[in-house]
Amino acid sequence: MSYFLPNIDAMSGYEPGEQLAGEYVKLNTNENPYPPSPRVMEALRQAIGEGLRRYPDPLATKLREEAARLYRVTPDMILCGNGSDDLLTIITRAFVGEGDTLISPQPSYLLYKVLAEIQGAKYQPVEFPADYSLPRGLAEAKGKVTFLANPNSPSGTFIPTREVEKLAQAIRHVLVIDEAYVDFADQNAMALVHRYPHVIVLRTLSKSYSLAGMRIGLAVAHRSLIAGLVKVKDSYNLSALAIVAGAAALADQAYFQECVEKIRAERADLSAKLRELGLAVYPSQSNFVMARFGEPRAREIQQELRQRRLLVRHYDVPGVRDCLRITVGTREQMERFIDELKTLL
Amino acid sequence: MSYFLPNIDAMSGYEPGEQLAGEYVKLNTNENPYPPSPRVMEALRQAIGEGLRRYPDPLATKLREEAARLYRVTPDMILCGNGSDDLLTIITRAFVGEGDTLISPQPSYLLYKVLAEIQGAKYQPVEFPADYSLPRGLAEAKGKVTFLANPNSPSGTFIPTREVEKLAQAIRHVLVIDEAYVDFADQNAMALVHRYPHVIVLRTLSKSYSLAGMRIGLAVAHRSLIAGLVKVKDSYNLSALAIVAGAAALADQAYFQECVEKIRAERADLSAKLRELGLAVYPSQSNFVMARFGEPRAREIQQELRQRRLLVRHYDVPGVRDCLRITVGTREQMERFIDELKTLL
Repeated sequence: MSYFLPNIDAMSGYEPGEQLAGEYVKLNTNENPYPPSPRVMEALRQAIGEGLRRYPDPLATKLREEAARLYRVTPDMILCGNGSDDLLTIITRAFVGEGDTLISPQPSYLLYKVLAEIQGAKYQPVEFPADYSLPRGLAEAKGKVTFLANPNSPSGTFIPTREVEKLAQAIRHVLVIDEAYVDFADQNAMALVHRYPHVIVLRTLSKSYSLAGMRIGLAVAHRSLIAGLVKVKDSYNLSALAIVAGAAALADQAYFQECVEKIRAERADLSAKLRELGLAVYPSQSNFVMARFGEPRAREIQQELRQRRLLVRHYDVPGVRDCLRITVGTREQMERFIDELKTLL
Repeated sequence: MSYFLPNIDAMSGYEPGEQLAGEYVKLNTNENPYPPSPRVMEALRQAIGEGLRRYPDPLATKLREEAARLYRVTPDMILCGNGSDDLLTIITRAFVGEGDTLISPQPSYLLYKVLAEIQGAKYQPVEFPADYSLPRGLAEAKGKVTFLANPNSPSGTFIPTREVEKLAQAIRHVLVIDEAYVDFADQNAMALVHRYPHVIVLRTLSKSYSLAGMRIGLAVAHRSLIAGLVKVKDSYNLSALAIVAGAAALADQAYFQECVEKIRAERADLSAKLRELGLAVYPSQSNFVMARFGEPRAREIQQELRQRRLLVRHYDVPGVRDCLRITVGTREQMERFIDELKTLL
């Protein structure tokens, strides 16, 4: 006999990318290769002290206000999360009941399906076409929430904002545009939150702001949606240090831009080199690149790279088993990766 | 038309205690008046750096191992949470489906009811008797989870462990013993996790370890329960800094004991002084004291203290409207509180 709900017993949980100790070149979890802004470090050092005995601000007001300034919205249009995973969880619990339907294109972020399973909801995947353009079926799919990762992972591809807007116009339920990687893209969909009361845009400081270790995500939407989501979140979902680090990171746009530019340049270089090696490379607007190595060669190469202490990501899911996802690292890491890869092809 | 689930629209959300800026003596949210251990500060300073760009350890292994040592269990019997609120949320989502029943004595931690509401579940309160002993009806109540805050809040009272064990023997569903305040008590129920596969003991570092700002909670239970709960939690629910701070705090037992002893001594003193003023004071095993001022006097005194920049907690809920909950502070804060109170009685 189990104490767990049947849907919990039946599911297997989300499997995060490997975090191995020791001297690995980690190109498997889309972390930023550059350190967080020195201003973040300074703000954190200042915040370590007696004040940690107190509960943090439930609404993370300092971070909320900094984000509002940056995204040109009002603070009541922003909800701060313990990473954007926390926000995805809150959104699912707020809108998707047992037996309801949660929709996303596939292959995409595997957590979306897991969130549906935890909630006892149905997960309806809509297959991407081969070029990872917006799936036609997405506008017709009926459910409570559609999650659209844009740029998508693991493909790295991007749906132009005008296409996303058409999707927003076509559906009547909540559309979540998960822009975890959008700081590396040419466009974004933030403006849609002013025009559509059922659109939520998600951002994270884990990738472009080098703060995966701090767990900071942001949801931006109409204030009525945000007010409802606040009821569902844990009272103190961000630590005092996460609030401080997040606000400091967003405030240092010069450092942020510099890191993003370096990564975009390395992305172009990596994509070109992979193509020179004869590989099909998907056009990336993110901080990683997906390339096709064939099946079962992709998985083998991942294993062989691992033996050489280079980690890249392989997904054993339909549609991408022949591919590897490679996080864009520093110039040095990319050279090392290409050199090792050449010996394996 | 609302995008939210009907249960979300219908609920009003949990209202955290006031966090006011400026020179208030805060005796309203049960924070520890002493700073975190100096070793916590040192560990945090060491951890601030380039490593924050990486995702934290999903299972918070260092904290898990430190907690396992302290509580004399194996690490796989421990789940770390983003505060114990995160653990209460995970537990509710794992065991309580839509329409299921969640039980707790009342009056108690108001979040339990809110968690049932978010889940679309029924909340069944079981009234405490006047002396806050174990409600007889609790053993007979049928549901999926029973939350028992012990020591209870806002009463501060404690159910002896042998009574809690009898409850564990009487019920067939999951029993969560929320020991947020137990470090200030004479007993605890940790040993029950070895004897009962349906018992979960919760601890937090927010009160006795002075780390409310860091959001660190611990669930201890049979490994099969913990393994299921891991599937429900967010992948990276603790930040890298929370893991570091938590492990350092648990490791410094000497500092912890010293703070706890000071608070227990002040608690005895505060209780005695309130009784000298002719007030009924509930026997407290926590870091706060509940005293009866009568209705509507309790609420008025809270407001009058507030004007004098002293915050205490009043709950506008049945059974405790005539009471105030006063967090045990430093000697200086307690003297100030008693002096002000005398002028109001």
